[in-house]
Amino acid sequence: MIKVGIVGGTGYTGVELLRLLAQHPDAEVAVITSRSESGVRVADMYPNLRGHYDQLAFSVPDSASLGACDVVFFATPHGVAHALAGELLAAGTRVIDLSADFRLQDADEWARWYGQAHGAPDLLPQAVYGLPEVNREQIRSARLIAVPGCYPTATQLGFLPLLEAGLADPTRLIADCKSGVSGAGRAAKVGSLFCEAGESLMAYSVKGHRHLPEISQGLRRAVGGEVGLTFVPHLTPMIRGIHSTLYATVADRAVDLQALYEERYRDEPFVDVMPAGSHPETRSVRGANVCRIAVHRPQGGDLVVVLAVIDNLVKGASGQAVQNMNILFGLDERLGLSSPAMLP
Amino acid sequence: MIKVGIVGGTGYTGVELLRLLAQHPDAEVAVITSRSESGVRVADMYPNLRGHYDQLAFSVPDSASLGACDVVFFATPHGVAHALAGELLAAGTRVIDLSADFRLQDADEWARWYGQAHGAPDLLPQAVYGLPEVNREQIRSARLIAVPGCYPTATQLGFLPLLEAGLADPTRLIADCKSGVSGAGRAAKVGSLFCEAGESLMAYSVKGHRHLPEISQGLRRAVGGEVGLTFVPHLTPMIRGIHSTLYATVADRAVDLQALYEERYRDEPFVDVMPAGSHPETRSVRGANVCRIAVHRPQGGDLVVVLAVIDNLVKGASGQAVQNMNILFGLDERLGLSSPAMLP
Amino acid sequence: MIKVGIVGGTGYTGVELLRLLAQHPDAEVAVITSRSESGVRVADMYPNLRGHYDQLAFSVPDSASLGACDVVFFATPHGVAHALAGELLAAGTRVIDLSADFRLQDADEWARWYGQAHGAPDLLPQAVYGLPEVNREQIRSARLIAVPGCYPTATQLGFLPLLEAGLADPTRLIADCKSGVSGAGRAAKVGSLFCEAGESLMAYSVKGHRHLPEISQGLRRAVGGEVGLTFVPHLTPMIRGIHSTLYATVADRAVDLQALYEERYRDEPFVDVMPAGSHPETRSVRGANVCRIAVHRPQGGDLVVVLAVIDNLVKGASGQAVQNMNILFGLDERLGLSSPAMLP
Amino acid sequence: MIKVGIVGGTGYTGVELLRLLAQHPDAEVAVITSRSESGVRVADMYPNLRGHYDQLAFSVPDSASLGACDVVFFATPHGVAHALAGELLAAGTRVIDLSADFRLQDADEWARWYGQAHGAPDLLPQAVYGLPEVNREQIRSARLIAVPGCYPTATQLGFLPLLEAGLADPTRLIADCKSGVSGAGRAAKVGSLFCEAGESLMAYSVKGHRHLPEISQGLRRAVGGEVGLTFVPHLTPMIRGIHSTLYATVADRAVDLQALYEERYRDEPFVDVMPAGSHPETRSVRGANVCRIAVHRPQGGDLVVVLAVIDNLVKGASGQAVQNMNILFGLDERLGLSSPAMLP
Repeated sequence: MIKVGIVGGTGYTGVELLRLLAQHPDAEVAVITSRSESGVRVADMYPNLRGHYDQLAFSVPDSASLGACDVVFFATPHGVAHALAGELLAAGTRVIDLSADFRLQDADEWARWYGQAHGAPDLLPQAVYGLPEVNREQIRSARLIAVPGCYPTATQLGFLPLLEAGLADPTRLIADCKSGVSGAGRAAKVGSLFCEAGESLMAYSVKGHRHLPEISQGLRRAVGGEVGLTFVPHLTPMIRGIHSTLYATVADRAVDLQALYEERYRDEPFVDVMPAGSHPETRSVRGANVCRIAVHRPQGGDLVVVLAVIDNLVKGASGQAVQNMNILFGLDERLGLSSPAMLP
Repeated sequence: MIKVGIVGGTGYTGVELLRLLAQHPDAEVAVITSRSESGVRVADMYPNLRGHYDQLAFSVPDSASLGACDVVFFATPHGVAHALAGELLAAGTRVIDLSADFRLQDADEWARWYGQAHGAPDLLPQAVYGLPEVNREQIRSARLIAVPGCYPTATQLGFLPLLEAGLADPTRLIADCKSGVSGAGRAAKVGSLFCEAGESLMAYSVKGHRHLPEISQGLRRAVGGEVGLTFVPHLTPMIRGIHSTLYATVADRAVDLQALYEERYRDEPFVDVMPAGSHPETRSVRGANVCRIAVHRPQGGDLVVVLAVIDNLVKGASGQAVQNMNILFGLDERLGLSSPAMLP
Repeated sequence: MIKVGIVGGTGYTGVELLRLLAQHPDAEVAVITSRSESGVRVADMYPNLRGHYDQLAFSVPDSASLGACDVVFFATPHGVAHALAGELLAAGTRVIDLSADFRLQDADEWARWYGQAHGAPDLLPQAVYGLPEVNREQIRSARLIAVPGCYPTATQLGFLPLLEAGLADPTRLIADCKSGVSGAGRAAKVGSLFCEAGESLMAYSVKGHRHLPEISQGLRRAVGGEVGLTFVPHLTPMIRGIHSTLYATVADRAVDLQALYEERYRDEPFVDVMPAGSHPETRSVRGANVCRIAVHRPQGGDLVVVLAVIDNLVKGASGQAVQNMNILFGLDERLGLSSPAMLP
Repeated sequence: MIKVGIVGGTGYTGVELLRLLAQHPDAEVAVITSRSESGVRVADMYPNLRGHYDQLAFSVPDSASLGACDVVFFATPHGVAHALAGELLAAGTRVIDLSADFRLQDADEWARWYGQAHGAPDLLPQAVYGLPEVNREQIRSARLIAVPGCYPTATQLGFLPLLEAGLADPTRLIADCKSGVSGAGRAAKVGSLFCEAGESLMAYSVKGHRHLPEISQGLRRAVGGEVGLTFVPHLTPMIRGIHSTLYATVADRAVDLQALYEERYRDEPFVDVMPAGSHPETRSVRGANVCRIAVHRPQGGDLVVVLAVIDNLVKGASGQAVQNMNILFGLDERLGLSSPAMLP
């Protein structure tokens, strides 16, 4: 039984970790921390967990109790894992960070996008980017895993087959992405209110979003060179879900894109290439650790359109974190992650 | 392994049965029927099921293949189970009917509310009303189970402790109930359109709703006499969920209602009496086979207010059906039903 | 042209006042105040107002500029109008308060429910409760108007015909009310987030809500004596709308309730008694200053069910405030308020 | 007073015409037709219209009564206006068609996309495409107006300044468009159900949508040559609203795009170029006849991103139809269309 700690468990990725781990046969949450809710039982804060975790309460973060865990998940705002990860790693605890702290390999780039100095640049060399479809082998032996962001997961999985095969012009990539509101977290912000985000749709951060450098880094790895990516995120009136609509120029009109995608993901348990002509719905992955993808070439032109959907809280955060844990501990990658999506 | 058949699996209770049974260790769906979708794979119709049931396709209803199942669920409009249940029972197959066909013990009353003659009155004596919190023992040995309706489940579970204890005036009961739109099913009706049911709320069927006689029948059993119930259902802009707000007159102001409710449901795995002062949210049971209840006595008066929430597709339909199956086959009642609700 | 001031215009009742007054031929907004947004143009904060009010900006509250207005609306949290109304009244400016500050005639009762001393008890004798369907004559000559709350508007309009006619037992009244989320205002509270209030429904404040004494005060006036009211508000996943489902015991089963309601509201421009058997939808009043009502007697019993819907931001707040202004200034009561509701 | 007829008034564009015309000082609806609802009063079908149009009822389409109108709006599925427009035009009645029947100038292209022969190719030469921002002069003297589709309105208004100025590469245009569900109309289709379209998002018709040739036709006119457009529509969980996110390659990085857009639309009453850096929300135009646009050049590259929002039922249909009527009859273009959008 893997002894699990969670730092910062009061947000949506925290409660989602608890939901998923409640169904995991080989993991047990021993510690969950929150400064603001210390002493509160998780089932009192999240009534969906009543009947599960009835004894588990939030505690003040404490190195001793966290260091006694086999693995600690950080479900925190950026900056927190920087401060605590080193000590835990030194204690032999593995760290799976759901925040952005270790996603960018370049500390200076991180500092530019997050507006503060990187707090643990010395740990970067050992940080593994936790996208199993790319880095499964490195994950197996990792000590510190950076779980990819939600937009980056859907967008990379959608672009990778084209880029790895050298088929798309890497300088003209567009990702038009649509997210549910839970991507903004549980913080009490006016823009996330029901009456502000409901019955409306808007683009945001067109000038530049923090997930842009993360996606670009992953795409550069795939092409082995520079990429030109335009990334436009949109806020849409649903709770969960990301829909990435990806545009790439593929000059070779003869290539069988459907076969390419099916082949690339043939052995991936959590990537589903849908039949040709499909339009994946975000609800088809609601609550499930799956990315569903469809690839189109409208009117037979040179512009290829890829549609990729995930649940931002599952494959885009907590589910992918559990998937990483399973790989890390040599378990069946699907443990605790095999429930179908909930529809309707 | 229990061999399961499903008649009429294209609606929401059908796909929800499939979702729940995918997580059940001891049951396997062998047959699923639909006249209109015959030949279509369930995962093509419901993409959330891709990766599960990849070989299962809808077939035309057929007595031989259904009769070879250990149990057959009817997820059909009313009238269908009347026509088919007898033959299956004769073949030794157990029948769990999610429709209204066998819920009312009185065939004439059924005919008045459903506007057609009862099609199988001879089967009524052996039909067991599948509310485990009331009829668990009869369910164990049943051959034919009528799964309670969604409103009736929440409303009966909310009223029963008061009525069984003889505390409430049975002639002055009010159930003000709010349902999500999935209660209206997957039929293409104008009133269920996103642009008709969204961003709006309305009462309906105030004159008389078909669940009224079902609820009254259950409450009569609890009090051992007649009851006077006013039932007002409302359509609300959410997909899943029922919230029953119940009003009863309890003259004895000294009785400890919280203790009464906790005691009544102490051993029930799927009824959660929340702490005094709670306000259960429907989302706290989304996707889960749970009824959460809170009991209030505002301003210390003689009017008691009970709040009861369920997911209409789970404890109000398919989950309760699986719970009945578990009891019927002597399994742990919680098998396949232990996942927490999904929040947010 | 009436010169209008608005105090505290950054919330939903403020922007709704601006929307309605933009269509008013005889009123002009001269001043709008907000401490936090001072200097910001209203059209920059509320882009729906671009092309209207392009020069109007929030200013710090200032007695001189407000006192130069013919009328000042308070769209503020409780307590603010207490502090400022006296000075404005002394300057000859009329005050229309959308907050709760002057709704209760009894300062002690106000203090109990709002948890602080009443800040202007000396003004209470001149405060007129701005429900035109009850107090139209007093409103004509008022200096200080307390605009009714949202729940109280729908609930009183629904109950009044029964109570004024002495038909209902005043000791056994129930108001089961459902509100959209905008009733909670634009404050950044976790409970009002899209991911908290969406796809869910819950009762709240069952123990006692601040609108209870306001409703009771109005009903007492109608019956000329004490009333017993149980009021249960619910938060529902829509932006605008209140649906009051009202229960009253009417022993006389021969009375023609439909005629009673139609007669009571025959000359009211903003109360619509729907045909017998109707179920009003909240969307049928979205954006409009109308209360639609239907009256039912299910199964011919002694329990009468009244359904009353309003838009909480219009007839439940800003629209009713403008209606009061029209009466106060001797205008056609319907000026600026005649647009149909927006459906879908 | 303009005497107005409406053919096919039971859908969403029909009820929206009625809502807008109720506020129009110089127009009066004399006839409204529907075969299926003949004899039903419009206010009985659409309760938001109670108190307006209380005498107006649907009638069977009849050339005499329609031909007695000054103008007839067609709010019908495609094909209907083909059959009736000629006769009305011969009677001297002007025709404003909200359907697709006269939008494409090429009858063969129409036939290919709509799967049936064009029913009135002889009328095409006199049909004017009713986008006032392009064709205002022709509209003034038109007899037959084809009101643009919803996606085409937002997409053309967003692209036109770039294309008319010859700045963008016309062969590499992308329109990633998001629509509310009301765009699918009031027909009872499974895909438009609350439980199907709610809490989900999907692309559709990626292979080719009927609005593609209409948009292309408009863009060709702007550039005076061929264009290459990829158009991907998405269904999003809101009732009203279209958000077009447009991508164009603009090699000249020195051009002041903000000034270009402001200049192009300086005198347009219903196009609002927002300040640089803005992200228009669809709710900022809900119920209003406005298109709001923002233009971005992320990271200073050669890819320009234009954001354009409209209410699909107003500027994308019925509002634009009224705007055309105003121009046609020499009225102030803004009559009946000046109410601010409703927010929240």
